[in-house]
Amino acid sequence: MLGICYYPEHWPEHMWQKDALEMKKLGLEFVRIGEFAWSRLESEEGIYSFEWLDRAIETLASAGLKIIMCTPTATPPKWLIDKYPSILPVDINTGNLRGFGSRRHYDFSSPDYLREALKISEVVAERYGQHSDVVGWQTDNEIACHDTCHSGSSNARQAFQKWCKQKYSDIASLNSAWGTVFWSMEYQDFSQIELPILAVTETNPAHQLAYRRFSSDQVIQFHDSMIKVIKKHAPNSWVTHNFIPMADTQTDNHALAKNLDFVSYDNYPLGRSDLFFANAPKENFKPYMRTGHPDYSSYAFDQSRGISNNNFWIMEQQPGPVNWANHNPRPEKGMVRLWSWQAFAHGADCVCFFRWRQAPFAQEQMHAGIKRNDNSPSQAWHEVKQLNAELQQSIFKAGSKVKSKVAIVTGTLFQWVTEIEIQGKSYSHLEVEFSYYSALRQLGLAVDFISTEDDLSQYDMIIAPCMPIVDQNFIDKCKNSKAHFVFGPRAGAKTKELSLVPNLGPGLLQQLIPIKVLSTETIRPDCSESLSFNDRKYESCCWREELEISAGVEILAIDEKADPIVVKYGRTHYIASLTCDHFLQDFLSSVAEKAKINTLRLPKDIRIMQRENLTFVFNYASEPQSLPTKLVDKLGHFVLGSKKLAPYDLAIIQHANE
Amino acid sequence: MLGICYYPEHWPEHMWQKDALEMKKLGLEFVRIGEFAWSRLESEEGIYSFEWLDRAIETLASAGLKIIMCTPTATPPKWLIDKYPSILPVDINTGNLRGFGSRRHYDFSSPDYLREALKISEVVAERYGQHSDVVGWQTDNEIACHDTCHSGSSNARQAFQKWCKQKYSDIASLNSAWGTVFWSMEYQDFSQIELPILAVTETNPAHQLAYRRFSSDQVIQFHDSMIKVIKKHAPNSWVTHNFIPMADTQTDNHALAKNLDFVSYDNYPLGRSDLFFANAPKENFKPYMRTGHPDYSSYAFDQSRGISNNNFWIMEQQPGPVNWANHNPRPEKGMVRLWSWQAFAHGADCVCFFRWRQAPFAQEQMHAGIKRNDNSPSQAWHEVKQLNAELQQSIFKAGSKVKSKVAIVTGTLFQWVTEIEIQGKSYSHLEVEFSYYSALRQLGLAVDFISTEDDLSQYDMIIAPCMPIVDQNFIDKCKNSKAHFVFGPRAGAKTKELSLVPNLGPGLLQQLIPIKVLSTETIRPDCSESLSFNDRKYESCCWREELEISAGVEILAIDEKADPIVVKYGRTHYIASLTCDHFLQDFLSSVAEKAKINTLRLPKDIRIMQRENLTFVFNYASEPQSLPTKLVDKLGHFVLGSKKLAPYDLAIIQHANE
Amino acid sequence: MLGICYYPEHWPEHMWQKDALEMKKLGLEFVRIGEFAWSRLESEEGIYSFEWLDRAIETLASAGLKIIMCTPTATPPKWLIDKYPSILPVDINTGNLRGFGSRRHYDFSSPDYLREALKISEVVAERYGQHSDVVGWQTDNEIACHDTCHSGSSNARQAFQKWCKQKYSDIASLNSAWGTVFWSMEYQDFSQIELPILAVTETNPAHQLAYRRFSSDQVIQFHDSMIKVIKKHAPNSWVTHNFIPMADTQTDNHALAKNLDFVSYDNYPLGRSDLFFANAPKENFKPYMRTGHPDYSSYAFDQSRGISNNNFWIMEQQPGPVNWANHNPRPEKGMVRLWSWQAFAHGADCVCFFRWRQAPFAQEQMHAGIKRNDNSPSQAWHEVKQLNAELQQSIFKAGSKVKSKVAIVTGTLFQWVTEIEIQGKSYSHLEVEFSYYSALRQLGLAVDFISTEDDLSQYDMIIAPCMPIVDQNFIDKCKNSKAHFVFGPRAGAKTKELSLVPNLGPGLLQQLIPIKVLSTETIRPDCSESLSFNDRKYESCCWREELEISAGVEILAIDEKADPIVVKYGRTHYIASLTCDHFLQDFLSSVAEKAKINTLRLPKDIRIMQRENLTFVFNYASEPQSLPTKLVDKLGHFVLGSKKLAPYDLAIIQHANE
Repeated sequence: MLGICYYPEHWPEHMWQKDALEMKKLGLEFVRIGEFAWSRLESEEGIYSFEWLDRAIETLASAGLKIIMCTPTATPPKWLIDKYPSILPVDINTGNLRGFGSRRHYDFSSPDYLREALKISEVVAERYGQHSDVVGWQTDNEIACHDTCHSGSSNARQAFQKWCKQKYSDIASLNSAWGTVFWSMEYQDFSQIELPILAVTETNPAHQLAYRRFSSDQVIQFHDSMIKVIKKHAPNSWVTHNFIPMADTQTDNHALAKNLDFVSYDNYPLGRSDLFFANAPKENFKPYMRTGHPDYSSYAFDQSRGISNNNFWIMEQQPGPVNWANHNPRPEKGMVRLWSWQAFAHGADCVCFFRWRQAPFAQEQMHAGIKRNDNSPSQAWHEVKQLNAELQQSIFKAGSKVKSKVAIVTGTLFQWVTEIEIQGKSYSHLEVEFSYYSALRQLGLAVDFISTEDDLSQYDMIIAPCMPIVDQNFIDKCKNSKAHFVFGPRAGAKTKELSLVPNLGPGLLQQLIPIKVLSTETIRPDCSESLSFNDRKYESCCWREELEISAGVEILAIDEKADPIVVKYGRTHYIASLTCDHFLQDFLSSVAEKAKINTLRLPKDIRIMQRENLTFVFNYASEPQSLPTKLVDKLGHFVLGSKKLAPYDLAIIQHANE
Repeated sequence: MLGICYYPEHWPEHMWQKDALEMKKLGLEFVRIGEFAWSRLESEEGIYSFEWLDRAIETLASAGLKIIMCTPTATPPKWLIDKYPSILPVDINTGNLRGFGSRRHYDFSSPDYLREALKISEVVAERYGQHSDVVGWQTDNEIACHDTCHSGSSNARQAFQKWCKQKYSDIASLNSAWGTVFWSMEYQDFSQIELPILAVTETNPAHQLAYRRFSSDQVIQFHDSMIKVIKKHAPNSWVTHNFIPMADTQTDNHALAKNLDFVSYDNYPLGRSDLFFANAPKENFKPYMRTGHPDYSSYAFDQSRGISNNNFWIMEQQPGPVNWANHNPRPEKGMVRLWSWQAFAHGADCVCFFRWRQAPFAQEQMHAGIKRNDNSPSQAWHEVKQLNAELQQSIFKAGSKVKSKVAIVTGTLFQWVTEIEIQGKSYSHLEVEFSYYSALRQLGLAVDFISTEDDLSQYDMIIAPCMPIVDQNFIDKCKNSKAHFVFGPRAGAKTKELSLVPNLGPGLLQQLIPIKVLSTETIRPDCSESLSFNDRKYESCCWREELEISAGVEILAIDEKADPIVVKYGRTHYIASLTCDHFLQDFLSSVAEKAKINTLRLPKDIRIMQRENLTFVFNYASEPQSLPTKLVDKLGHFVLGSKKLAPYDLAIIQHANE
Repeated sequence: MLGICYYPEHWPEHMWQKDALEMKKLGLEFVRIGEFAWSRLESEEGIYSFEWLDRAIETLASAGLKIIMCTPTATPPKWLIDKYPSILPVDINTGNLRGFGSRRHYDFSSPDYLREALKISEVVAERYGQHSDVVGWQTDNEIACHDTCHSGSSNARQAFQKWCKQKYSDIASLNSAWGTVFWSMEYQDFSQIELPILAVTETNPAHQLAYRRFSSDQVIQFHDSMIKVIKKHAPNSWVTHNFIPMADTQTDNHALAKNLDFVSYDNYPLGRSDLFFANAPKENFKPYMRTGHPDYSSYAFDQSRGISNNNFWIMEQQPGPVNWANHNPRPEKGMVRLWSWQAFAHGADCVCFFRWRQAPFAQEQMHAGIKRNDNSPSQAWHEVKQLNAELQQSIFKAGSKVKSKVAIVTGTLFQWVTEIEIQGKSYSHLEVEFSYYSALRQLGLAVDFISTEDDLSQYDMIIAPCMPIVDQNFIDKCKNSKAHFVFGPRAGAKTKELSLVPNLGPGLLQQLIPIKVLSTETIRPDCSESLSFNDRKYESCCWREELEISAGVEILAIDEKADPIVVKYGRTHYIASLTCDHFLQDFLSSVAEKAKINTLRLPKDIRIMQRENLTFVFNYASEPQSLPTKLVDKLGHFVLGSKKLAPYDLAIIQHANE
């Protein structure tokens, strides 16, 4: 299924009908509208104007399109801000008010904002909740984007004090949980508590973690209230939200997704790659500047599937150059199609493109659309057309499932720990997790992202690249699992209040592998050292732990002084440092072998993905590549493409035996 | 003509007479005084003390010097700030008040400041306007320096609202012009409008552009009022202003210069080179660290001549190391003389040195003078002496004109567009424009900087490195011109409100060359790609446009995929990317040939410039260089120097046939 | 002597006794307590709780430990801040309040804070001043750390105005001293004076220097008041303070130390090296990432000895990885012992370790202790044990003296000048001073750090790497000294008000060497040039002065143009640029020879130090190294170790003839 993001209010009304017909003709089925339209829907307090939107819906629906309606809450209008100035959030790094003039200028702790945002949401939901052409809803837009999860306002401070009271009941419990005896930070009363910002030097990590949990809860509470309002008036429609990359929300993504029918993701491979790989050397970056890294989009897709344990949508797919990264290249010809197919391969049921036509004005005028601002079709148009034709062949079924034997355990909580407890500046949660993911993908493996709450029973191999906080429930599930486990450094090292575990790291994991982390060091990134595994040399870098091992623990890899880096006990592996891609591939392949999971060594820039009875093969290279005969023969027959893949092309193989 | 900047108030009165006599003896004709002296002229509100300045003028004039008087408005005194604290400007990046304690601590939108500044200006102008020894006036000092064009104060906000009302009349027009429907940024009333600063994320480009225009207008309005006050009392004196580099004023320099008799420029080649080339690799930077880049000073000279279409003055010439760049080398021996001659060659009528004697105290104590602080003559003294001797030979006539067949179209508006619409972080308006200029200079060409308002009829070759906004009037002039045109990327891409042109770039320029810019991409600066022109390979980088060309358009250069980069139609060329110095030289040389303009391939570090019947040749190299015989024979006979140029030396050739 | 830092309030009371007994058994003699305990000692205004501390003292003392008591003033509790919010300091770079939530959240100019801090200090001193087990006191903690010397508060502004009035008496004197006539900065009244912060551009250097002096005086006045309070109640105990690196206090360290019985230093070689060498290339950094630079700790030790002209203590010795640098490696095995012995060699009488046991909570939970948080002994435990055993052999006597023939003249004032008058961004006072120190240490020389106030008579060689301000008294002492002098660039260039000296640099030093600094330039760090000395080539870089020399001045080193860089007159040498390590070693060795001081060329990573009749030899290398036979034979016999030094090991040689 395909769809499109459209802003009727941006265009003269006489253009709507032609737009609608063209959308339909291009194979687009869904059209998302209403996002950001607050000032047009409510131009003064309580003065609503829905007629234009009614007409837009009618025009679009008449052409056969299904409507996805948005709540316009990401852009509170000026009259609202002027009436309730404390809606504006406060920057936690500077203490400055974050003013009107762009978007997301609201504080999740502002009672005025919450009331007004739910009011407009309810008004919209009431009007269109039962509308036959409105099939689904999107809440807000890219919630918490632009670092808006956190605010340093007095609203936030009061709400945080209330949250603390609710969580810790009495101030003595809070003092004890946070260890405020250190540096005389003790409180006598909840009303004394400050936000952990703008202090003389670093604030208490437990205080910081509480503030992150609180801020996340504020987002979720707001979002859940909005879902409730929509569901009340639109009981038969689905509700989704368009997520930014999970690492950027600063919110517990699993919890945020909980009450949604499914998760959507806004996929901007080039913009994201430009930022994520900003410091990568040219030779690593340039080959992918117009394609994105072969594993970057799928990393987000698999996470999107993971946080709601369900198929997902792409709500916004990049159709050409964007405007917001440091540098904004044009996608290679074919990539818009490839990214879309890649989304389907990884569990998407629908791909919507952002946006229909490039807007000539305002902040995103340099952001491409399916059509150029002169209404001519852009390169993406042709690729969408091809994509639709391919989809019409009904090879691929929305709703079909991805199944993986391999899982990565993730969680926003773990990210928070690494951001609060920096310890070594070269440790990046995102880079660490991505390095494991990419190694697995180069081995041809499908990967699920799971939380510690999830069922482990389907997996043969479970990897926790960074899991500093763990509970007994998870340990019990590990014990009952059949999987082989790989834990990266920091695993189990912290209590839920971000203190050291009493028995040294890896804490509760000592039940799975009897080792102790005697000390932890961090290393300048250019000062990596060697790691020996199976008589080959690799790199150990950035974060390193000194291990004490008990009898029965096997040493798999050592450093220059023959001290253990990778150890194994039963089905549990522990890696006491950060390493390099070559090591991760070789090591994870050896673990997979023990877990009886077949791995491949894919040609560079080839990736494969299986969804039910289809295997998708993607070529990210600028050269044609041929699939290994062995692979092809085993899999089945081609329903799209062939053994020889053109640059930026794909093939789909239907499994013989399914 | 030569002159000097002098601060009598910095020195004991008994030193004045000897100073004056020495100035005269050194050949200095003008002495600039009064700048920054507000606290000495008005020590309390309305309490004026001019006796000391009367005596200073008398002493200087008695020695035969002519006085340039300044308004002291760049440094409002403490009592004034304390009385009217809202004079202080607000930093637009931090929201902080920019306090007293240095200079330029005033807000161009403060009514209190405007009133007081014009009052002191009038008092000074009244006293000295008709004084026989005061021959000219300088307004303020380096207006808008230290990023003072913009302020985030409530004074600025109110004035901006008034400006918007005046410009757009009704709020609906503003909403439409700015496209505020995007992100619900719509206003109901002018009083709601905020400054486009300190928002959650980027603000509306049209809003930003309006704010830049407004801020520029505020500067110009203030400055024009001051000129008027001076002219009222000094109807027979000229009025000038000492500009900083054009790119640093954030003000429409042409408009700012309009009511002046001529423009002055403060020339600091080493300090400016240190900042401009701060990221240049050592091998490119070091050869010029004590000379400045061979084209940097002349770039400013030609712009100074351009913005008022007139000869100009150097009001402050660097005489030795300065104090304000990141690193402050000593000029090579000879460079003070060379820079001065270079200014004359490019259209200066007078060069004044900053300053007479190095001040032992306060912020600029490490800034060299013609005399050291112990009153001994510095290296510059000897070079000024030599320069004066050479000038006395009357080879060169002040008032004579530079004539160019080649023009670069420039404008602060274009710079604003690139700063507001960043799109690719490696696009620098200054670097782009400078790269074209430098290529032309290496071809031995004299270059005018013109605005789109200027007459084009004298030019055979007109280059617009970056002209995103263009009007029909300019297009009409192009059509009627005989010139060959070269347009860089972004040309004509934007409306005057910084929206996309409706017919795709290059918009109105499609009347000159029938092409369309289908998409625009930006590239990381280290990821440049190849460009083929005349079977040679060059570099394409940073900013790249995809072109659709109509029949009759000739492709001159292509990329690796054979897509067009440089195209030509009639006399109009369009370059769809940023390129390298080698390409610009080769390409512009080929265009010049078509325009029947002779070009040279000057030896490295040699530059030539013609002013009426004189050709100046400058050697920026640390080695002696000989001029090509061909060149010399053609030109005429040496009136200064010879065919063999010593390091950092120059020669002047008088044309045989003129 | 050895000691430990302990926080009984961090641990359940039942653990105290076992801790105490283990400390004693490990050879620890002193235990420091009470630091940061304000919220436990005074939980509400005037409500004191000392019983727990009484019991802790009793428990520790019963085990035979001697108590060092701290004033808890570095961490004012929340109730105090809430009652007197103006205690909080203001960030001078942002104008933001620096809030509660970490430590050192107090303003040295807050009358409320001063009163309350002295009150709690007096209460503690009254209670324990005569306690038989409390042998000494530590004031506050790491005073001025986290850039807290300076505050931009209105308290600070008022106090600064008062300070100015006291120093300059009348406003005319201040105006004259600061040169406020420049840029109309003149004041009519002391109440007009602002802090020199947050202005439009750089503020007056004299104003800045006054503000630095004032801020330093505020710290010293507070600290002296506290010493007085302690001494009043504890007349028989010593009082010390634990200093951070001298360059980080922004306070006149000599003055701060004046009323202390001795100075203590907190020694964190790895954390400090990581920050100090953050920009060093990998090949220079990596060899020392787990040892610290061989000269870094001793640099601090020699300064600690210097500022009170006395032996010193290490109050906090790093026992493992810390938590606060960019990267925090584990010390190489043996380094905790080596650093401790190195401290003793350079004049320490006692080394205390920070901290007893790693705390599981709050900001420093990743900071190692002698014991891990599970109460197991860490690597450092074993090294302390060995160290104690070695100390028990009574080779080394606390109280014995270091004697040097070589001195470096230093002072916080000189550092301030370089930070205020930046002129070239690559000039770092710390790096310049360290480069001289390191060269001397590689020559095997013991170095004293002295102030210009100190007696010069014991020295044969005196080096002033950076001494921009000098007085006649020092010049007179130089004249009467027997020493050979080396002055680096900037020497004598400034008056005490940070103006240029009237007779050009080196000002008063012209009495020692008749030269003049005609001009000063600064150079980009990657653009160094060559220096010739004794027919060998070295590097000249960053800061360079043009010299005029009088008859009799000998030129020792020249640049590429044969201009003088190093000159000599009698016993006085002047170096007119910054140079490289090779040059400094060769040049200083040649000066030492003239001064009849023996120098060595130590093997790389070997350092030696003599304290009375013992010579200590340290091997910082990862390889074993043998001492040169010549050296060993001359010195005496080994009382620890041998001629062959293991990696990270040391030897002690007792002198034959003493």
